[in-house]
Amino acid sequence: MSDALENAKPFHAHPFDDDKLREECGVFGVIGVTDAANFVALGLHALQHRGQEAGGIVTHNHGTGFHSARRFGYVRDNFTSAKLMETLPGDLGIGHVRYSTAGSKGRTEIRDVQPFFGEFSMGGAAIAHNGNITNAEALRRELIDRGSIFQSGSDSECIIHLMARSLQRDIPERMKDALRRVEGAFSVVAMTRTKLIGVRDPLGVRPLVLGRIGDGWVLSSETCALDIIGAEFVREIEPGEMVVISPEKGVTSHRPFESRQSRFCIFEHVYFSRPDSILGGRSVYETRRQIGVELARENPVDADLVCPVPDSGTPAAIGFSQESGIPYAMGIIRNQYMGRTFIEPSEQIRNMGVRLKLNVNRALIAGKRVILVDDSVVRGTTSRKIKEMILDAGAKEVHFRIASPPTAWPCFYGVDTPKREKLLAATMSEEEMREHLAVDSLKFISLDGLYRAVGQGEGRDSNCPKYCDACFSGEYPVEPFDMIERGFKLKTAAE
Amino acid sequence: MSDALENAKPFHAHPFDDDKLREECGVFGVIGVTDAANFVALGLHALQHRGQEAGGIVTHNHGTGFHSARRFGYVRDNFTSAKLMETLPGDLGIGHVRYSTAGSKGRTEIRDVQPFFGEFSMGGAAIAHNGNITNAEALRRELIDRGSIFQSGSDSECIIHLMARSLQRDIPERMKDALRRVEGAFSVVAMTRTKLIGVRDPLGVRPLVLGRIGDGWVLSSETCALDIIGAEFVREIEPGEMVVISPEKGVTSHRPFESRQSRFCIFEHVYFSRPDSILGGRSVYETRRQIGVELARENPVDADLVCPVPDSGTPAAIGFSQESGIPYAMGIIRNQYMGRTFIEPSEQIRNMGVRLKLNVNRALIAGKRVILVDDSVVRGTTSRKIKEMILDAGAKEVHFRIASPPTAWPCFYGVDTPKREKLLAATMSEEEMREHLAVDSLKFISLDGLYRAVGQGEGRDSNCPKYCDACFSGEYPVEPFDMIERGFKLKTAAE
Amino acid sequence: MSDALENAKPFHAHPFDDDKLREECGVFGVIGVTDAANFVALGLHALQHRGQEAGGIVTHNHGTGFHSARRFGYVRDNFTSAKLMETLPGDLGIGHVRYSTAGSKGRTEIRDVQPFFGEFSMGGAAIAHNGNITNAEALRRELIDRGSIFQSGSDSECIIHLMARSLQRDIPERMKDALRRVEGAFSVVAMTRTKLIGVRDPLGVRPLVLGRIGDGWVLSSETCALDIIGAEFVREIEPGEMVVISPEKGVTSHRPFESRQSRFCIFEHVYFSRPDSILGGRSVYETRRQIGVELARENPVDADLVCPVPDSGTPAAIGFSQESGIPYAMGIIRNQYMGRTFIEPSEQIRNMGVRLKLNVNRALIAGKRVILVDDSVVRGTTSRKIKEMILDAGAKEVHFRIASPPTAWPCFYGVDTPKREKLLAATMSEEEMREHLAVDSLKFISLDGLYRAVGQGEGRDSNCPKYCDACFSGEYPVEPFDMIERGFKLKTAAE
Amino acid sequence: MSDALENAKPFHAHPFDDDKLREECGVFGVIGVTDAANFVALGLHALQHRGQEAGGIVTHNHGTGFHSARRFGYVRDNFTSAKLMETLPGDLGIGHVRYSTAGSKGRTEIRDVQPFFGEFSMGGAAIAHNGNITNAEALRRELIDRGSIFQSGSDSECIIHLMARSLQRDIPERMKDALRRVEGAFSVVAMTRTKLIGVRDPLGVRPLVLGRIGDGWVLSSETCALDIIGAEFVREIEPGEMVVISPEKGVTSHRPFESRQSRFCIFEHVYFSRPDSILGGRSVYETRRQIGVELARENPVDADLVCPVPDSGTPAAIGFSQESGIPYAMGIIRNQYMGRTFIEPSEQIRNMGVRLKLNVNRALIAGKRVILVDDSVVRGTTSRKIKEMILDAGAKEVHFRIASPPTAWPCFYGVDTPKREKLLAATMSEEEMREHLAVDSLKFISLDGLYRAVGQGEGRDSNCPKYCDACFSGEYPVEPFDMIERGFKLKTAAE
Repeated sequence: MSDALENAKPFHAHPFDDDKLREECGVFGVIGVTDAANFVALGLHALQHRGQEAGGIVTHNHGTGFHSARRFGYVRDNFTSAKLMETLPGDLGIGHVRYSTAGSKGRTEIRDVQPFFGEFSMGGAAIAHNGNITNAEALRRELIDRGSIFQSGSDSECIIHLMARSLQRDIPERMKDALRRVEGAFSVVAMTRTKLIGVRDPLGVRPLVLGRIGDGWVLSSETCALDIIGAEFVREIEPGEMVVISPEKGVTSHRPFESRQSRFCIFEHVYFSRPDSILGGRSVYETRRQIGVELARENPVDADLVCPVPDSGTPAAIGFSQESGIPYAMGIIRNQYMGRTFIEPSEQIRNMGVRLKLNVNRALIAGKRVILVDDSVVRGTTSRKIKEMILDAGAKEVHFRIASPPTAWPCFYGVDTPKREKLLAATMSEEEMREHLAVDSLKFISLDGLYRAVGQGEGRDSNCPKYCDACFSGEYPVEPFDMIERGFKLKTAAE
Repeated sequence: MSDALENAKPFHAHPFDDDKLREECGVFGVIGVTDAANFVALGLHALQHRGQEAGGIVTHNHGTGFHSARRFGYVRDNFTSAKLMETLPGDLGIGHVRYSTAGSKGRTEIRDVQPFFGEFSMGGAAIAHNGNITNAEALRRELIDRGSIFQSGSDSECIIHLMARSLQRDIPERMKDALRRVEGAFSVVAMTRTKLIGVRDPLGVRPLVLGRIGDGWVLSSETCALDIIGAEFVREIEPGEMVVISPEKGVTSHRPFESRQSRFCIFEHVYFSRPDSILGGRSVYETRRQIGVELARENPVDADLVCPVPDSGTPAAIGFSQESGIPYAMGIIRNQYMGRTFIEPSEQIRNMGVRLKLNVNRALIAGKRVILVDDSVVRGTTSRKIKEMILDAGAKEVHFRIASPPTAWPCFYGVDTPKREKLLAATMSEEEMREHLAVDSLKFISLDGLYRAVGQGEGRDSNCPKYCDACFSGEYPVEPFDMIERGFKLKTAAE
Repeated sequence: MSDALENAKPFHAHPFDDDKLREECGVFGVIGVTDAANFVALGLHALQHRGQEAGGIVTHNHGTGFHSARRFGYVRDNFTSAKLMETLPGDLGIGHVRYSTAGSKGRTEIRDVQPFFGEFSMGGAAIAHNGNITNAEALRRELIDRGSIFQSGSDSECIIHLMARSLQRDIPERMKDALRRVEGAFSVVAMTRTKLIGVRDPLGVRPLVLGRIGDGWVLSSETCALDIIGAEFVREIEPGEMVVISPEKGVTSHRPFESRQSRFCIFEHVYFSRPDSILGGRSVYETRRQIGVELARENPVDADLVCPVPDSGTPAAIGFSQESGIPYAMGIIRNQYMGRTFIEPSEQIRNMGVRLKLNVNRALIAGKRVILVDDSVVRGTTSRKIKEMILDAGAKEVHFRIASPPTAWPCFYGVDTPKREKLLAATMSEEEMREHLAVDSLKFISLDGLYRAVGQGEGRDSNCPKYCDACFSGEYPVEPFDMIERGFKLKTAAE
Repeated sequence: MSDALENAKPFHAHPFDDDKLREECGVFGVIGVTDAANFVALGLHALQHRGQEAGGIVTHNHGTGFHSARRFGYVRDNFTSAKLMETLPGDLGIGHVRYSTAGSKGRTEIRDVQPFFGEFSMGGAAIAHNGNITNAEALRRELIDRGSIFQSGSDSECIIHLMARSLQRDIPERMKDALRRVEGAFSVVAMTRTKLIGVRDPLGVRPLVLGRIGDGWVLSSETCALDIIGAEFVREIEPGEMVVISPEKGVTSHRPFESRQSRFCIFEHVYFSRPDSILGGRSVYETRRQIGVELARENPVDADLVCPVPDSGTPAAIGFSQESGIPYAMGIIRNQYMGRTFIEPSEQIRNMGVRLKLNVNRALIAGKRVILVDDSVVRGTTSRKIKEMILDAGAKEVHFRIASPPTAWPCFYGVDTPKREKLLAATMSEEEMREHLAVDSLKFISLDGLYRAVGQGEGRDSNCPKYCDACFSGEYPVEPFDMIERGFKLKTAAE
């Protein structure tokens, strides 16, 4: 049932909304601090890049119970109002920012916004998750047959209903029961009246870290959200680990799943995570700079300037410049006040959508051979427009260098990707893409080069890869059950 | 869990919000018309007096399925927008206006606003109800124990969960199953993808009528909502009856409950229903005028003017004037643009709250003996202020005549009443009330007089009363189970 | 220059917006009280019937100077917010509610909303006026030629510019200078940093009264706004009088204009003023009831019921019933939650616009001969629809009795009237109107009868009429200069 | 008079609002294109960095006349609505973005938002200006004495009133008359019903450029706004030049002022203009990079990393790195979703304001000697906080290099600067500032170095400086008349 216009939705200020893979969620939780909601709001603000569509916070307060607020739009536009924040008392809280979940076909509604809440006979629990449940549709059908009433179109709601039906009497145990029925990628942050809980799926596809603030504890998708509140980074939650945290007993670690080789999402290094976060003990910025170094080694070219496609191509461009000795320059300037809904004047403006966000530094580019470094090519539509703007400004040559391998397969683990047939690399070879973009050269980093840049000196071990790289390789570490039912074809031996 | 500020709430323009009993809901449904939502919006507008806090509409459209919109505020402020109404396509729809349900202790949230919706394995159903389920809390505990997740604080949601767990495969049969577990007063309007359903509880406490429009059918709390869309009044749904309506098979009647003597709410005649509605075959306006006639016969007094307390006292004042021969006059004028939130200036204004809504016609009242006719006395706070304003204007005498017996007991069947100890008549005799209000005389119509006015020539048959008059008599036709658990004391033999 | 969408405008809840003459403004001012703005807000709320489109308040505070707020919509929806009211400090303030001024052709903009403010070399002044300046366009052209920059489309702004150019050094003297150049009808409330000023035009067309509250003073369009703040009614400002009020010197009276016979607007008695106000020493309600008495004497008819067209026909209907002995009844019920923008369902509803606001009490009307008492007939469109609804409900006969003479001429003195050709009485005789409305009889009170009802026992003295009755007689006491320039034709000797 | 809360104001997303000099306005105009308003909206979006508080557009359309809309907030949030843009028809339009004008002491109101409009006897004109009129207060007093009524607190309104009183009959001639009375810095864009007009003050302090689009013409503060609509850059309007543009006659050039040595604002090169704009024939980005080069030459230091303070320090940091050979690195990451109003949690977070916008790349910075390149030091508050964050992250040394000389004097030519005593450099020597900031070294580029970077190979000619550098030198090319009257002290011979 679609609930009409319950809340107006904001436009998306993301620069090239339809031509990037996009992380779908960020999660954050804190226990043992005064006014937990204010910490959660700050944490979600720092994780805003993981989901711009909506955000939600749940807190628990002794005396008044659970409190919640869910809103479309940016954290800074909603969770900064004293009037709203006063309605979220308590020293324990969790929050969520989201782009859109696989479950809601098309439009999101406010009731699809996490955290979700369930009242059980032994008390309530709230839950927020980053990732995607690959058997959510099958679970949903089963639960409805048994008499569950779903309130949202979100895959995450299954977890709450599975918990409600568990025979266990304790909430953490019920959560274990529920998560054992769930397949896919998930980093969960949950809370009861007295405990903060964090879980990562057995493969550890999505990140989740533990931090310390005073006498309290923090869970967050990334370390940058620890920094904003001045929390200390303790460690990453391990793949397949559940932590249960209370102020009295501290952190207790559980292992509810069978042990497996972990497969962290390699695209978190390439694009999703913030450059000031730390993943696997390394600065994300430094990893990206190193990707640029590898890229320059693999695909050198003679040119006058190395220019990033702002902002995500910047660290790799710096690395490329440093490795190649070609000067780094800001050939493309981003408009800080992005917009995407201006009305096109009657006299048509070429590449108007891109011009709203980017402008070429004409006086700098004219007559030059330019290397453009971008993080990825998805549909290729934006790359084409940028190339045209660069040529209009009088560049002599345009060479694209891409900080990831060709993206040829969709992600089913919590990333918004176009259908396979819309991915440029799914239907074209590198040379066909170069022709399609009509540039002087186009080169992607190799999958081995990318593994080297993230610290696997020997490149990718194809027998036992250390990362989930399904979007490049087509090798899905968890079978995408619902999608196969809907007709998705896995890679064949021939491909 | 309270969901903070999800929607701003309007102020209530009802004149004396805290000093009136208040009907809590109105329901409306239509099937077999093009653009059902527009008819539902008009119907709810006509029923707005039954609930001003919020309204909701659900429709079903072949092809796109169920659609819904729920809003705080008046129907005219929400369901008049073309943008919103376009999101509610279909030829079948139901709607609800509400004041507040017993379940939500205190604040209402948008998710408490009906109609409620449930997806079952054989398809979805939406349901709206007027009344109150007296065993809702007990049912809720039972359902949560079995694994149901509640999304609202409303008593009505129990019905959906009971339906989800019914072993029947057909929605009307599941609804029968569910309603047989429910106690209290309820007039239900529900819909599946193809059928409109109406039910009244076995006592028929709350009204529900059937209408015909073209080839379609209408269900409504009152006939005034048939008039606004030009529908023809067919008949009342009978106490204990369920009607299932489809365009093909028309209206089929079911009797899911054991037969009992009906007990329609007598206060619908006194105050809740609109004067242009027809109840039990009689104009509500005419019944109220007749109450004024009975009142004049029972409690005559010599005076210069009969003035209604606007607007609800008007019909009885007309009857009182006609029976007594004392001229009818508008001694109190109501401000059409009511408000209740003005900031009180530093120099305090006496009775400021009342002055925002009423003003005394000073030039008319000065030096006169005035009879004021009001529909009821609840807390007595407003009556006191009106009396003061009348005296300030120079009236020589003030005589109150009340068009209902003393309200001494709370209602648990879908009416918002103060706690018993706040009811003036629960703690004072008639003479004590007169002294408390400091008026020259104060008289209530007798319970027998009221029964005569509604057409029971012989008065009330105390062995088998035809109406629910618990608010006057303390005799509750359905045991208020949840309230007794919370500590409410029934009338003792001594009282 | 039109300023696009500066503020959204509310819909008008007035029952029959296009078929009533409409007062265009109400003014209010207070001096010598703490928190003057709160008093002004209350006063404007009581005067809301004189203008529903927008309202404005200006205050002056020692230290922080002048403050102002202007808003579209009802007083109760804007000037009740603590946040807004805190921005209006001071013990001296004036306010204005408006419908629309003659000057703004079509759409009103926020800058057209009074009070207007001007900074002069000896300090600032704010001014609000009720009425219409009949030579505003000519004055405006003259002022622009001399270098004035107008900020609004309102006729009232001329007064400020005339004041700015006056050679006098004192603000009250400048105002006299300015008002002597102005023609038409105006009741002005103005303020300097230390004084409250009130003026009525030489004919005294529009009302203005003086009140006392504690040590302070009040000016208001009507006495009902004195009642709401508990102020005492002192006297009416006289035609051609200017009062200058300061807390120290009290009220000083000036006579800036040549003396003339006054011509108060007789329609204020019929419809514009609130029934609980006092005009010329008489209750407006009582005058209207007396109009009903005169109407019954002039045009008796045999019938079963006398029903008012709510709400403005009510007092005259009461008088008609009392004089004729035919019972008074509420045959038409008004919806308290008026709306006018519902979307018409595809199956067309007859008279849908009227049904949103009124419903016939069918069970009461069926088979009866009904006298409908209304205050006036303007275009006749609503009268027709009401008649149809009454006949649909089964009435046997319908007799219209109108509490004013035929409205055959537009008003140019601050009342919103249709163009002359749209006035039913401008093109039809009484019998033609009866046929047009298709009723059994239609009778208007005579002009003499109306004069008798307002206390002129001998009727209208056509040599020296005591009231402005131009809308009935076509005799304009001030020549409508701008309108004649635009082509309006005055009554000829032949008419 | 302050008009309370007429429009809600947005928060400012500018990173360090109180610690930057800030350009106050951008102007844009276009003639001879269909749907001029859409072009103006795009142009203002590109100029948003010159004023984020509010924006306004005026258009003229044959038939319907002038149209206008003024709004608080970003261009992208207001002038993207089809509903609004449809209210701005015509092929000629001008627009304005603003931060705040000198005139409005404190709060801006919607009526202070330009363009301003005046109706003269020969037709209307609208005007927008970038800069500041240094004798506005004196002019305002004179105009009020003569009978002008001001509608805003803005200095720009003087121009309209002077024009209204000019004895010339033609609008461009009236504008010349008016501008000859005005002192200060101004780049004006204006329009009549048929002409677009541009003017720069005799010193040419603020920029203004001319562009060509199809058969139409464009005026803009910067070339980046030509790029966004695909217009061709023609030339800069010259200091002291007025251009009058019509589609028929093209561009005609006038010289209404006496000729003087031009003094363009050198801070436009340092910070105000966008890096992709072209000023004086050079890329602004390239000039800033060259400032970094000069800075590295003047003040070398041994270190591990050169990090910009984002985003304005970036080009100079690149230049510094290239000249010094020290690697460039993103040591500080800016949050793309800036906010400034989060509620501080009870456990105080150090430097919370800065953390909302910036985060240190801890893993990169730890143990390093870091050079931070920033564009300027105003109050020094932000520099201190950034230094603390860098040290918290474990940096070994912190060296500040500033891309402008010490800012010791306020600007009175259209830039928002703190009072002189709040400027760090007004009260401290370079070494005192270093101690105050507690950094290892702090060096500013010299004034001569800055002149060299902008292309004056020989440095600053102190007898005849080519730029306005009053903020550094205290030498004001136009006497700040109003400010001196208010007590501002010019530089003495001793200083």
